[in-house]
Amino acid sequence: MKILETKTAPNARRVRMFLAEKGVDIEYIQVDITQGENLSPDFRSKNPWGKVPVLELGDGTCIAESIAICRYFEETVPEPPLMGRDPLERAQIEMWQRRMEFSLMLSVGMAFQHLSGFFKDRMTPVKEWGEINKEAVSKLLAQLDHHLASSTYIAGEQFSVADITALCAIDFARVIDVRPTPEQTHLTRWHQQVSSRPSAKA
Amino acid sequence: MKILETKTAPNARRVRMFLAEKGVDIEYIQVDITQGENLSPDFRSKNPWGKVPVLELGDGTCIAESIAICRYFEETVPEPPLMGRDPLERAQIEMWQRRMEFSLMLSVGMAFQHLSGFFKDRMTPVKEWGEINKEAVSKLLAQLDHHLASSTYIAGEQFSVADITALCAIDFARVIDVRPTPEQTHLTRWHQQVSSRPSAKA
Repeated sequence: MKILETKTAPNARRVRMFLAEKGVDIEYIQVDITQGENLSPDFRSKNPWGKVPVLELGDGTCIAESIAICRYFEETVPEPPLMGRDPLERAQIEMWQRRMEFSLMLSVGMAFQHLSGFFKDRMTPVKEWGEINKEAVSKLLAQLDHHLASSTYIAGEQFSVADITALCAIDFARVIDVRPTPEQTHLTRWHQQVSSRPSAKA
Repeated sequence: MKILETKTAPNARRVRMFLAEKGVDIEYIQVDITQGENLSPDFRSKNPWGKVPVLELGDGTCIAESIAICRYFEETVPEPPLMGRDPLERAQIEMWQRRMEFSLMLSVGMAFQHLSGFFKDRMTPVKEWGEINKEAVSKLLAQLDHHLASSTYIAGEQFSVADITALCAIDFARVIDVRPTPEQTHLTRWHQQVSSRPSAKA
């Protein structure tokens, strides 16, 4: 069992952090996305969609998509639970995980792709769209600061996969030069708390 | 227990179809997003992110995000399973559901929002970005046609939530004037098969 990933990619970090929380020790194989290694026939035989990370099981079965990989380990290594303990908690954590993903992570990614030109050999950057997303990220951080005034973690009183997604998105936002501001005291408190977990260094 | 939704919204259809497959009978309350009813203080007290659909439980607890709502019912009404029967199947279905969501559904939505001007009172449409997404949708349909040559359903040999997401995205793509072509025989076969389920009319 191994994971094909790119150390610097925020989605890869989500999976590493999730597995570190679970205490899962697994082999990581690096894929150089700057050289388009993820678009090679070999990689595409594992994930036709050309994205990292990919979990490759012992029998060669491959699972792509960060959260699908996390779900696999949530079920096979249940402790500590990071996706909820009962149907309601699981739905609420999934709701927050998705909010962090579809708003925050996606906006950071769009701003990065459309402003940095990092993937300009394989996509058409649209500067105006990048700027809209960068502005959206700042607004989302303010919204999160407000939310965290009355919530210890993103999805309530316990650490979950929603915190992992939010942390990886916010830390990656450095590439578009957006960071929590000192006035965002609740977001800053949460950020320090979550960053101090050993898994944040995975 | 009730669901606040907008009949014409593709995400709302996903939840209705999922619940119809489960045989869950529930009250649906219409929210007029064209009039911005989803941005009202009342609606935002149920979902601060201002999006439909929202599941409101008997005690007033609200769950937003289509797939989080589906997950809640998958756990409370397990039959028939639409998200997999064991850890591997669940991971694989989640992988495919997410592919359908992050590529297909998202591209259709972006093309619609940025080309139609439907929400121009609350966002800045970027025509070039809309065109890129519209083109992406056509490519994704070709990719799906290829995939369905060797797979009965999107995530393998059984109907799942991944088919629901794909169907709702593809049917909604009519608003950007993209449809499966007659040459896409595998996609067309799948589309007819899935559209003929009673739940597709929910």
